[in-house]
Amino acid sequence: MNWLVILAGGRGERFWPLSRAARPKQFLRLLGPRSLLQETADRVAPLIDRAHTVVVTGEAYAALVEEQLPGSWVLAEPVGRNTAASIAWAAAAIRSRDPEALLVVLPSDHAVGDSAGFQEVLSAAMASAQRRQRMTLLGVRPTRPETGFGYIEAETATARAARADGVAVAAFVEKPSRERAEAMVASGRFYWNAGMFILPLSEVWAAFSRWLPDTLAAVSGTSEEFAWRFAALSPVSFDVGIMERATAVDMLPLDVGWDDVGSFEAVARLLMGRDPARVVWDRVHDVTVIGDEGPWIAGIGLSHLVVVRTPDAVLILPPEESQAVRALVHQLQETEEGTRLI
Amino acid sequence: MNWLVILAGGRGERFWPLSRAARPKQFLRLLGPRSLLQETADRVAPLIDRAHTVVVTGEAYAALVEEQLPGSWVLAEPVGRNTAASIAWAAAAIRSRDPEALLVVLPSDHAVGDSAGFQEVLSAAMASAQRRQRMTLLGVRPTRPETGFGYIEAETATARAARADGVAVAAFVEKPSRERAEAMVASGRFYWNAGMFILPLSEVWAAFSRWLPDTLAAVSGTSEEFAWRFAALSPVSFDVGIMERATAVDMLPLDVGWDDVGSFEAVARLLMGRDPARVVWDRVHDVTVIGDEGPWIAGIGLSHLVVVRTPDAVLILPPEESQAVRALVHQLQETEEGTRLI
Repeated sequence: MNWLVILAGGRGERFWPLSRAARPKQFLRLLGPRSLLQETADRVAPLIDRAHTVVVTGEAYAALVEEQLPGSWVLAEPVGRNTAASIAWAAAAIRSRDPEALLVVLPSDHAVGDSAGFQEVLSAAMASAQRRQRMTLLGVRPTRPETGFGYIEAETATARAARADGVAVAAFVEKPSRERAEAMVASGRFYWNAGMFILPLSEVWAAFSRWLPDTLAAVSGTSEEFAWRFAALSPVSFDVGIMERATAVDMLPLDVGWDDVGSFEAVARLLMGRDPARVVWDRVHDVTVIGDEGPWIAGIGLSHLVVVRTPDAVLILPPEESQAVRALVHQLQETEEGTRLI
Repeated sequence: MNWLVILAGGRGERFWPLSRAARPKQFLRLLGPRSLLQETADRVAPLIDRAHTVVVTGEAYAALVEEQLPGSWVLAEPVGRNTAASIAWAAAAIRSRDPEALLVVLPSDHAVGDSAGFQEVLSAAMASAQRRQRMTLLGVRPTRPETGFGYIEAETATARAARADGVAVAAFVEKPSRERAEAMVASGRFYWNAGMFILPLSEVWAAFSRWLPDTLAAVSGTSEEFAWRFAALSPVSFDVGIMERATAVDMLPLDVGWDDVGSFEAVARLLMGRDPARVVWDRVHDVTVIGDEGPWIAGIGLSHLVVVRTPDAVLILPPEESQAVRALVHQLQETEEGTRLI
């Protein structure tokens, strides 16, 4: 059986004031009427139904997941220990019901422009992973020399049309320098690692047994022991702990308008051309209002800004300042009054 | 006896979203913990007490005046008919109790930097008006060639120190051209007309009897007739209807940091250097937040803006766009949803 595993444990400080400690980015309706988490599940719904959807999240967010994805199987981590632990727990949980499962692991906070195209590639990747019994991942064809992502090096360049078959992965590259990123993009053999994995359960189980046996032991133990054993794990990402060590990994290229929605600048880019509600403008150009709740926003003679609207805080910034939001949140934490807003 | 007459009928569209149809500029705490109306009464309180304070306002605002200036005598106009009608009504009302009164008439929506200096000049003007039994006004010494104000031409130039005695008024000048304004300011004989009058009741009564007898009749009639007779009056300002026709008018120069608080730009100038509440900034320069209620305002990498904060609308604009606020309000009036915000 096919299972969808959504990783939904992120905290999203860069999206304040829309995201709060109690409601991070993946639970927000940033791009439409459905949250990023819901859009992630919706996108895979034609391939895997809700009864086979596992969401790994923090304890604080379990109720939000149940509200947004009713009928899903929620694994609420007592504390965040990075993605290797999350995927191991999902694998152990699914293994207890379906030892022959195929796991589709996706992050919960990204955007995809072309859902049908995504389904087509994912479907091919699932068939390939099942047939070849190899851990497989989707590699996003890069559109710019981004230095903030990890890259996947394919053994051979892939044509744009070649979606049905995977190619072997030669190596993983951590966040590169600008120069190296430009060379990688130019070569045609490198892809962004967007954390989308298709994993035959037996393969990933064997990999955990070999490289992260403590993690597997923690998530497979009795429920009495679980919380403290889980908390005692060192945080390791699935990429570093498993994928970079595995020798037989396939990749399928993805070319479907993927975006990591990493900042308000990205959200503004994705919302471009949409008319926000409850806004009144006079000579306003290139200003994006993000957030449906809160006061009307009125502007006169403005350009090149992002306005983030919530009922109790309104943030104004040029889009290229989006990375500085985290520092602003830290500044708020310095006062009791400000801390209440986080 | 001395009586204070405050004219508080203005509507203040230029101050949206802070001012609303139900709460115009004079009732707002624009510059401190007291509204402009309260500041006006406070400023005169050492000279005239609350029991001798008459506030002329619109029916819609009578409750607000009673709330902000409890104990004052509120005259609620059924409809606005400009300042001649307002002053005539106040004169008739006061005359019924004190035919020998001296009226100090002030607008309700201006700012004065130096209250003690204002009291000194007003006190001198009251003594002069009483002694000479002449209608007297305060002329603001101009600090720039403003084309939006009316000017008072004094018969002779006055020295800065000469506050005790008035000078005779030669003429009134309506809003001038830029060129003429520059010449007037340079001459030292012209002052801004800020609508501040000191009026022996017998003199102003005689003037109304002569030049606006219909107005006097309307406000002196029976209460049954009052509403429709008042509404039937043509709107005329006190300046045009009475002062410009009077031949014996004195002026005392006022040099006390007067500001008409005519726009958000003026408010921003007056608030300069004060720290607003509930704001979090990162690299923000020359940005003024006006309005204490409503959401936190957060900004990153901004300069030269005014942010006007209310619970249901936030306006963002460069200060020099303040005159365009009225057009924005008219735009809001075009939709039902927008109209609810006005």
